[in-house]
Amino acid sequence: MQELQERIAREGRNLGRGILKVDSFINHQVDANLMMNVGRELGRRFVQAQVSKVLTAEISGIAPALTTALCLNVPVIYARKSKPITMPEHVYRDTAPSHTKGHMVELLVSPEVLGPQDRVLIVDDFLATGQTIAALARVIQQSGATLVGIGTVIEKTFEGGRAFLGTQYGVPIESLVVITDMNDGRIVFGA
Amino acid sequence: MQELQERIAREGRNLGRGILKVDSFINHQVDANLMMNVGRELGRRFVQAQVSKVLTAEISGIAPALTTALCLNVPVIYARKSKPITMPEHVYRDTAPSHTKGHMVELLVSPEVLGPQDRVLIVDDFLATGQTIAALARVIQQSGATLVGIGTVIEKTFEGGRAFLGTQYGVPIESLVVITDMNDGRIVFGA
Repeated sequence: MQELQERIAREGRNLGRGILKVDSFINHQVDANLMMNVGRELGRRFVQAQVSKVLTAEISGIAPALTTALCLNVPVIYARKSKPITMPEHVYRDTAPSHTKGHMVELLVSPEVLGPQDRVLIVDDFLATGQTIAALARVIQQSGATLVGIGTVIEKTFEGGRAFLGTQYGVPIESLVVITDMNDGRIVFGA
Repeated sequence: MQELQERIAREGRNLGRGILKVDSFINHQVDANLMMNVGRELGRRFVQAQVSKVLTAEISGIAPALTTALCLNVPVIYARKSKPITMPEHVYRDTAPSHTKGHMVELLVSPEVLGPQDRVLIVDDFLATGQTIAALARVIQQSGATLVGIGTVIEKTFEGGRAFLGTQYGVPIESLVVITDMNDGRIVFGA
């Protein structure tokens, strides 16, 4: 996605250790029109997958997941990291190590919104190690629903998430911008 | 907003102590099309306000704030509750008591995305006591930006937020659905 890649090249900052700062247009501040185009493009790539729900993890997955869901005309679920008082006692839950926080985070989904009849597209802002997405996939498995695809905004290939998730789940994985190298302060884009 | 009020009447649940469960269509699971209509309506009500940024608090404010920003053709900022490693050392910050969590939460906004030139519309899912919105308003004051309005999806008038915020800030406050009473398991809608 050319528009997005150009924006990353212009405004993204390589903070070292694989951390890409994009909080002026992707997270913290979100360019709403760009995010709508992200949703259109992810939606287009999965339009044949008969998606019934989009699933993401709070917080920074919400924006791209919502616009993708809009374009696919389905609801979006964001897994909660802590249990709100509105959630029932029994929930689907799994854990993933947080890439930027350095501890384990829980991901919780209510059985009221996800079940065996659902065909689920996971959407997140980053595909890095794939650990958060794998935890979402395990939540989908717990619910009896079917994972039909994984769509992310920015993929960092050097963290190996695609290979890991591909082996584990065998579903199509789409990323709108691919970054192959962030060594020495660079941001190198792939095909 | 009739569509939303009907949906609350049909799917909303009164859990007692003023807690309205709407997590099948507003938070946790989001009806993307309904949320787009929410954004259209909030955008329409503030179209004259020369809004340059929409500001909300993570997590459940993100969806209505994003769709409102889309319709106003401006960026959206979500204040973070914990500081990501991508955020600079000096940030605008304030605290608010969490309605559903029972402790104080911090709200952090980077000076990189908000400044004196901005005219800011605050959007959130609920207007209850107004404490979270007031904390966002104080963050706006710290940045030197101008608060131009407050838009919420669901207002619970019996928690007094409108009176409190109106006195403090004197800006237009718009809510799409007004609930006047939740005593004895009821959900009573206002005009």
